[in-house]
Amino acid sequence: MAELEDTRDMLGRAGLITVARALQILLNHLNVVPLKSETVPLNEAFDRILSNSVISPEDLPASARSTMDGFAVRAADTFGASQSMPCYLNITGEVKMGSEPIMKVEKGCCFKIPTGGLLPPGADSVVMFEHTVPVDDTMIEIVKGSGTGTNLVQRGEDIIQNSEALPAGHLLRPQDLGLLAGLGIAEVTVANTISVGIVSTGDEIIPYTEAPQPGQIRNINSITLAGMIRRAGGRYIDYGIVSDQREIFFPALKKAVEENDIVLFSGGSSVGVRDLGEEAVEALGPPGAFVHGVALKPSKPILMGLSGTTPVFGLPGHPVSALVCFDLFIKPAIHKLSGRSCSNEIPQPALPAILVRNINSAPGRRDIVRVKLEFENGTWAAHPIMGKSGSISTLSRAHGYFFIDEESQGISEETVVEVYLYQ
Amino acid sequence: MAELEDTRDMLGRAGLITVARALQILLNHLNVVPLKSETVPLNEAFDRILSNSVISPEDLPASARSTMDGFAVRAADTFGASQSMPCYLNITGEVKMGSEPIMKVEKGCCFKIPTGGLLPPGADSVVMFEHTVPVDDTMIEIVKGSGTGTNLVQRGEDIIQNSEALPAGHLLRPQDLGLLAGLGIAEVTVANTISVGIVSTGDEIIPYTEAPQPGQIRNINSITLAGMIRRAGGRYIDYGIVSDQREIFFPALKKAVEENDIVLFSGGSSVGVRDLGEEAVEALGPPGAFVHGVALKPSKPILMGLSGTTPVFGLPGHPVSALVCFDLFIKPAIHKLSGRSCSNEIPQPALPAILVRNINSAPGRRDIVRVKLEFENGTWAAHPIMGKSGSISTLSRAHGYFFIDEESQGISEETVVEVYLYQ
Repeated sequence: MAELEDTRDMLGRAGLITVARALQILLNHLNVVPLKSETVPLNEAFDRILSNSVISPEDLPASARSTMDGFAVRAADTFGASQSMPCYLNITGEVKMGSEPIMKVEKGCCFKIPTGGLLPPGADSVVMFEHTVPVDDTMIEIVKGSGTGTNLVQRGEDIIQNSEALPAGHLLRPQDLGLLAGLGIAEVTVANTISVGIVSTGDEIIPYTEAPQPGQIRNINSITLAGMIRRAGGRYIDYGIVSDQREIFFPALKKAVEENDIVLFSGGSSVGVRDLGEEAVEALGPPGAFVHGVALKPSKPILMGLSGTTPVFGLPGHPVSALVCFDLFIKPAIHKLSGRSCSNEIPQPALPAILVRNINSAPGRRDIVRVKLEFENGTWAAHPIMGKSGSISTLSRAHGYFFIDEESQGISEETVVEVYLYQ
Repeated sequence: MAELEDTRDMLGRAGLITVARALQILLNHLNVVPLKSETVPLNEAFDRILSNSVISPEDLPASARSTMDGFAVRAADTFGASQSMPCYLNITGEVKMGSEPIMKVEKGCCFKIPTGGLLPPGADSVVMFEHTVPVDDTMIEIVKGSGTGTNLVQRGEDIIQNSEALPAGHLLRPQDLGLLAGLGIAEVTVANTISVGIVSTGDEIIPYTEAPQPGQIRNINSITLAGMIRRAGGRYIDYGIVSDQREIFFPALKKAVEENDIVLFSGGSSVGVRDLGEEAVEALGPPGAFVHGVALKPSKPILMGLSGTTPVFGLPGHPVSALVCFDLFIKPAIHKLSGRSCSNEIPQPALPAILVRNINSAPGRRDIVRVKLEFENGTWAAHPIMGKSGSISTLSRAHGYFFIDEESQGISEETVVEVYLYQ
């Protein structure tokens, strides 16, 4: 077990830390978590993460192939051929798709060959149809000379045997499945789908399927988090709404930790409930909580800890905060636990947009500012959504967000901001 | 049945048309296809498309709530209060989360209230804790005056009853599920998941699970297309590899048309197989083929038709071409058939990158140029992947593509190109 990094100050007070520092501490702690993997058939491997690199078992293509419809020739026979000085070759065979040419192309001869056809013995080049003129069924006129290797793909030109086809940690996209199918790899070892347990707490929260009494509010976070978990490549178990009394909440959280790779709980954002979360994470056993708040708006009161090797996140109750925490911390944790290497991935580009009003920010804090985008005068305008973070409708009205860094005290209107789009 | 637009010239020859024209003709033909929908529970609606707009059944919030921990007051009682001239209020009650305050806040009095607590009768403002100093259990000192409506979210401020919460055609993302849960909407009517049939043809093609004989190649397209269909929100039925003999291929295609909303077949790119595809689409009955090739590289020989109301696509055999056709035509067709409105979606931004070499292009044709991106000297460099379009490895090596428009004869090195990333 790695030593827990301590984010408390000399007096034992849990202080706020920056987003970057919180992420670093989180990912460091996830190094202690063993990766689990399973072997699945290729046609069930879509969007999974390779556990090991895949080494090509063979040369591809296994033999030289034509890349054109035309005639397989000995290049030397066509040397210098042109419109005004054509050469003539005898058609002594034909390559069929899907079968191996046995006969040899002799000097002065050629075989008809389709795109993808195997190069017959003796031939070292292909003349495309467009550079030939038929004389009769047995002879062809070549009006353009063809060099050795022209219109061919050579053995191993695509992939050489024993080379790395895909690295460990690679996300299997459709085109990667195609590559593996081409190599005849019918099953792959992939990271287990990360299971995330969701526990909601708060005595005012009711299932969204029920009618609220005055003062009660429907559970929004569980279904929102479930969707985000699926989008990040995980699966989820929803433990429903659990009373925030110790004797009910603590055992429920313990059960979720036992049954999942990651546990999220979201509760009221009031101080009492937050303290209960801290207490619950400590009660789960060592190492315990290691992040007690982040200099971030919204989402300051996020709590992170580890019970054994299982990361546990306490999320602020507001749905907007839950979404911010998910993007910044939980998605990277899911990727890390599944061994996903994002190092060879290109970051999604942001959309430059012109901010339409001044936004202030406290220095030392990162602000996530949600925006609605409008296309105005040939450019994108970013309209900040100023709704309270408990507002449900702003969740789905926002097209994306930009952030104001810790060093900044705000951004002036007319500045170009980089907007990250919500998927 | 809408009249088919004809893309043949006056002599009945099927000519090449531009990408934009082909897409326009395709989408026009899909207007004749009836939308199918089903009603599902909200927790199964992730990533589905709303068939109808959702109207809010209630005001949200249903009553005014506090957005701060503090004291519910009558604003007039705090008028002018400051550090040097505080006012004093009697604490005569406390609002509990999840329950409705019955007692009234009288003049000169206040109630303790948590974030999210319902505003009690009589109060019209909340003073946050930070602007108070406790005197004793029954009295509080207010050091900053609070205006009417301060630190409150008003009834209906988030969403007003009978307003549109989400429009028809909206893709249900995690945050949208949260919004609907907040409104107590427990089931939604969504478009049926579009079913796409995949038929592979070509006598040289074998399943990727089998060992190829010389001249045979493994089936790459079916598994690649299957992944792309899933990513576009569809599901698929794989009809395997079908001989390209009329008496086998035609009935197989007919069965796929009967069982799916869209049918793709991919075959050899040789002229003979392409003609067979044209013939097969005509044999499926009217209206028949309406696009007989597009001025596009790669993917020129793409074929599009309609059998009754079912769109049928004949794709070039090369996997790279299949991917290009999918992005340009089949994905928009899937979205259109499911009623997905992309009009309120922001297009994914492209990544600007510096082209590292000259690329030529024929005017009148759109070229799709795949690139590998490298971060060099603080900027992205786009390295064109020049592999033959039959190459499997270039499929997964490319990070994305840029395109050269019909008007252009090529792009010079050092030009900034807009790279669309492969997901």
